[in-house]
Amino acid sequence: MSFTKLDQLGHKLEALEHALAILGADEATHMAVGGGEKRAEAMAALAGMHHRQATAPEIADWIEAAEGETLSEEQQTALREFRRQYTNMTCLPTEFVERQTTARMRCEQLWRDLRAKNDWAGFLPALEGVIALVREEAAMRAEALGLAPYDALMEQYDPGHRAADITPVLSELKTFLKGFVPEALAVQEERLAKTPLRPLSGVYAIERQRELGLAMMAAVGFDLTHGSLSVSHHPFCGGVPSDVRITTRYKTTEFLSSLMGVLHETGHAMYEQNLPKQWSHWPLGKARGMAMHESQSLFVEKQLGRNPAFWDWALPLVEQHLGESWSKADILPHVHLVKPGLIRVDADEVTYPLHVILRFELEQDLVSGKLNAVDLPEAWDAKMRDYLGLSTIDTPQDGPMQDVHWPGGAFGYFPSYTLGAMMAAQQWAALEKQHPAVNDDVAKGRFDAVTDWRRQNIWSQASRFSTPEIMERATGEKLNAAYFTSHLKERYGA
Amino acid sequence: MSFTKLDQLGHKLEALEHALAILGADEATHMAVGGGEKRAEAMAALAGMHHRQATAPEIADWIEAAEGETLSEEQQTALREFRRQYTNMTCLPTEFVERQTTARMRCEQLWRDLRAKNDWAGFLPALEGVIALVREEAAMRAEALGLAPYDALMEQYDPGHRAADITPVLSELKTFLKGFVPEALAVQEERLAKTPLRPLSGVYAIERQRELGLAMMAAVGFDLTHGSLSVSHHPFCGGVPSDVRITTRYKTTEFLSSLMGVLHETGHAMYEQNLPKQWSHWPLGKARGMAMHESQSLFVEKQLGRNPAFWDWALPLVEQHLGESWSKADILPHVHLVKPGLIRVDADEVTYPLHVILRFELEQDLVSGKLNAVDLPEAWDAKMRDYLGLSTIDTPQDGPMQDVHWPGGAFGYFPSYTLGAMMAAQQWAALEKQHPAVNDDVAKGRFDAVTDWRRQNIWSQASRFSTPEIMERATGEKLNAAYFTSHLKERYGA
Ligand SMILES: [Zn+2]
Ligand SMILES: [Zn+2]
Repeated sequence: MSFTKLDQLGHKLEALEHALAILGADEATHMAVGGGEKRAEAMAALAGMHHRQATAPEIADWIEAAEGETLSEEQQTALREFRRQYTNMTCLPTEFVERQTTARMRCEQLWRDLRAKNDWAGFLPALEGVIALVREEAAMRAEALGLAPYDALMEQYDPGHRAADITPVLSELKTFLKGFVPEALAVQEERLAKTPLRPLSGVYAIERQRELGLAMMAAVGFDLTHGSLSVSHHPFCGGVPSDVRITTRYKTTEFLSSLMGVLHETGHAMYEQNLPKQWSHWPLGKARGMAMHESQSLFVEKQLGRNPAFWDWALPLVEQHLGESWSKADILPHVHLVKPGLIRVDADEVTYPLHVILRFELEQDLVSGKLNAVDLPEAWDAKMRDYLGLSTIDTPQDGPMQDVHWPGGAFGYFPSYTLGAMMAAQQWAALEKQHPAVNDDVAKGRFDAVTDWRRQNIWSQASRFSTPEIMERATGEKLNAAYFTSHLKERYGA
Repeated sequence: MSFTKLDQLGHKLEALEHALAILGADEATHMAVGGGEKRAEAMAALAGMHHRQATAPEIADWIEAAEGETLSEEQQTALREFRRQYTNMTCLPTEFVERQTTARMRCEQLWRDLRAKNDWAGFLPALEGVIALVREEAAMRAEALGLAPYDALMEQYDPGHRAADITPVLSELKTFLKGFVPEALAVQEERLAKTPLRPLSGVYAIERQRELGLAMMAAVGFDLTHGSLSVSHHPFCGGVPSDVRITTRYKTTEFLSSLMGVLHETGHAMYEQNLPKQWSHWPLGKARGMAMHESQSLFVEKQLGRNPAFWDWALPLVEQHLGESWSKADILPHVHLVKPGLIRVDADEVTYPLHVILRFELEQDLVSGKLNAVDLPEAWDAKMRDYLGLSTIDTPQDGPMQDVHWPGGAFGYFPSYTLGAMMAAQQWAALEKQHPAVNDDVAKGRFDAVTDWRRQNIWSQASRFSTPEIMERATGEKLNAAYFTSHLKERYGA
C-alpha cells in the first residue's frame, strides 16, 4: 500500500527532524564554543539526508498511487499535506536551490558585517543578487502551485493566505493606526504628566528571574515534563513537541522584558506541546504555519501577559520571587509603554504592525519588480516618515538593513507577525464570547478555560485546514482587523 | 575511485554518529523527563540509518577495489580500519542481530527490576538466553575473524588483545594482589591507629564544587572551548571530539568522590579532544578501544589525581574554591583509602583488579560452555571468598547480578578496565623515564610535559595500530604487570 510507504517515510523524516531540532537548540544553549564547525558539518549532512529522502522521485508515485487507495478521512487529509510538502520541496530545481543557498549565505554573512558599519553601498550588490533569485523562485513556485508569485512565496510560511485577502485587512489596520498611534501617545503623555513612570529598576538575580519565569510558564500551561527553559543570545522556541526548548536572556537590572519574552516563547511552546501526538510523523501533524504560530505566542504575551487582569494574579508572584512590591499602577505603564522607534523587534504592540505593513508593501514591489533594491533606502524612509514620523535616510542599518529576513531570502514571511497579532485578538474575542468571565479567571491565575479553548480550536487542528479556514472555524468569521483595533483602543485609547 | 567512496561514506556516518552522540549526552543531561519515548524512537531510527549505510553490501566491493588502488600509506591504514569496522559490523546475520537485540533489551529491563529485589531465580532464564546467544555470536565472530571465540568478542572492544597474551599478565597480577591486599590493609590500619582519619565532611555548594572541577579540568589540559561539564545521574564522557560532554554528580556533604570522577572523565575527554582531526570521519581516526580509553582516564585519575605530588598543587586550589584548609596528611588517607567490598564500581585501585579478574575468568567459562549461568552464584562466591574474603552467596544482587554488562550481552569487555590500569602505570613509567622531574611538574600544576608525551604516544596514534602495538611503541615493551604492581607497592605498600 502506497500510503504505508508515505507513513514509513514520515517516521524516518521525523527522526532526522528530531535530530536537527535538538542539535539546533543545543548549538544555541549548551554547545562548547569550539564545537560549531563540526556541528555545522553534521547538520548540513543530516539536512541533506532529510532533503534527499523527502524529495525522492518515487514519492510522487506513492502519492499518486495513494490517491487511488481506499483511505480513511484522516489518511486522506494526511495525504493532502504529504502532497503539499512534496510540491513545496520539489518545485525548484536542485541546481537553482544550490545557487540560491550560496547567494543567501553570502548575503547573510555580509549583512552581519556591514549592518554594524551602516554600509548600504557595500551590501547592495549582494541583496540585488538575492532579490533577482527570489523573483525567479517566485515565478517557479507560482507555476507549480498555480498561485500569484508573491502568494506562492507566502504559501511556504503561511498556507492559504493570499495577498488579495490580507491586503484590505492590513490596509484597514494601517489607516486606523496612522490615526491611533498619535492618540495613544497623547493619552500616555497626559497620564505620565500626572503620574510619572516609577522605574522598575533594581538588582534581580538571574536564578530568581528564572524561577519566576518557570512559575509563570507552568501556571499558564507549559508542560515542564515536556520542555525546558534555557539561556541563549537570541530567545527562541525550538526542540521537538515532546521536549520543547525555549530560551530567554536576562539582565540583572531589569526583569520585565525577559519575562514578557518567556511568555511569548511559552505561547509558541504550548502550540508544539499540544499538537496531536498520533500525527507527529506526518506533515498533517505539524503546526499550521508562521502566522498561526505567532498568533499563539502573541496570545500568551499580549492577550494574557499584558492584560491588566493578569497582573492582579502576577504581582504577588513577582513579589514572591523578586522580593519587590509594585502596584498595578506602577507596572502597567511599563507593560503598555508605547514608543515609536526605528527597530521592529523593539516595537510595542501599537506601532509594531506599521513596521510589518511597511515591509509587506515594499517586498511585494521588490518581488514584482516595481521596486529595485537600489531604491530601497528612499522608499523605506518615505514610508517610515509617513507611518511613524521617523527618518532612516541616514541610517540604512536601522532601515532596509535592519532584518535578517531579506538577506536570508525570506520574502513573504513578514505579514505573519501582524496577521498573528490580529488572529490572537480575534481568538481572544471568540473565547470571551464563549467564556464571558475569562478576565476574572486570568485575574485569579486560572487558565484552564483558555487552554481548553485553544486546544480544541487551534492546537488539535494541526494542519487539517488552511490558516484562514482554521481561523474561520475557530472564531466563526473571516480574519478581520476589528478585534485587534478594538483591543488596542481598549488598552491604549482615550 | 573506490577509496573516495569510502571517504564520502565516512562523512555521512560521522554526521549520524555526531547526532547520536549529542542526542545521547543531551538525554542524560538536558532532556525534559517526558522526552524519552520520542528520543528513543529518533535514536533507534538514526542508528538504523547508520547501520544500513555502514553495512551496505557495495562497501565490500569498494574495500576490495580500493585495496587494488594506489594509495598513500595513510590511506592504506585507513582502508585497513574500514575493513575491520565493516567485518565486525557485518559478520552477524541481520536476523540474528535482531533476535539478540530483543533478548538483551529484555534481559536488561529484567535486570533493572530484579536486581533491586535480589531475585536471581527470576533473572536466570533471561540471562541464560543471552548467554546462549553470546555463544552463537562468539562462534560466528570467531569464524569471520579467524580468532578464538572469546578473543573474537574482545576484539570488538579492544582490538589486538588475545586471552593467551593477557591471561599470564592478569594471573601474575592476581597472585600479587592476593598477597598485597592484606599487606596494604595492615599498613593502612597501623597508620590510622596512629592518626585517625580526619573527616572531610562539610557543606560544599554545588556551584563551588563545579568551579573547582572546571579549574582542575582546565589545569590538567581539558580544552574548555571543545567540551563542557554537566550533571547526570551516572557520570560519563560523551559527545564528539569537537565538543566532549563530561558529567558528574554532586553531594553537598562531600566533594572528593565527585572531583575524582571529574578527573577520570577528563582523562577520557582529553583522548577524544586530541584525536587527529583530519581523520575524524574515518574509523582510523577513532580512539583505539576500551582498554586504551580506560588507560587515559585512569592515568588522569590515578597517576595524576591520586598522586601525592598532585596535592601539593591541588590543596590550595581546593581551599580557594571550598574555603577549607586541609594538609596532605589529612587528605591522602582519603585519596588512598583501601576498602575491600562487594561492588566493583565502588572499589579502590588496589582491590578493583580482583573484581575484574573474577569476571574475566568466569565469562571465559560462560562463553566456552565450561560454566553455565545456573552455577554462577556458587562460582562467583567461591572466587570472591578466595580473592577478597567476602561472600555473595546470599546476595546475588551484589554478585553475578551486579553489573549491566552481561545482561546487556557485553562479554569480553571487563578485562579493559584492568588492562587500562596496567597500561596507565606502564605509560607513566615510560614518561617518567623520559622526564625524571615529572613529579615536580605535577606538584607545581604543570602538566605540559605529561600532555605532550600522551599526545605524541597515544592520542595522535588514534587507531593506526592495535592496542598492544601502541603500547609497545609508546613504552618500549609489551604490556606487563610490573609497573602497576610497583605503582601499588609504592603507594600502598609497607
Ligand atoms: Zn514569536
Ligand atoms: Zn572510565
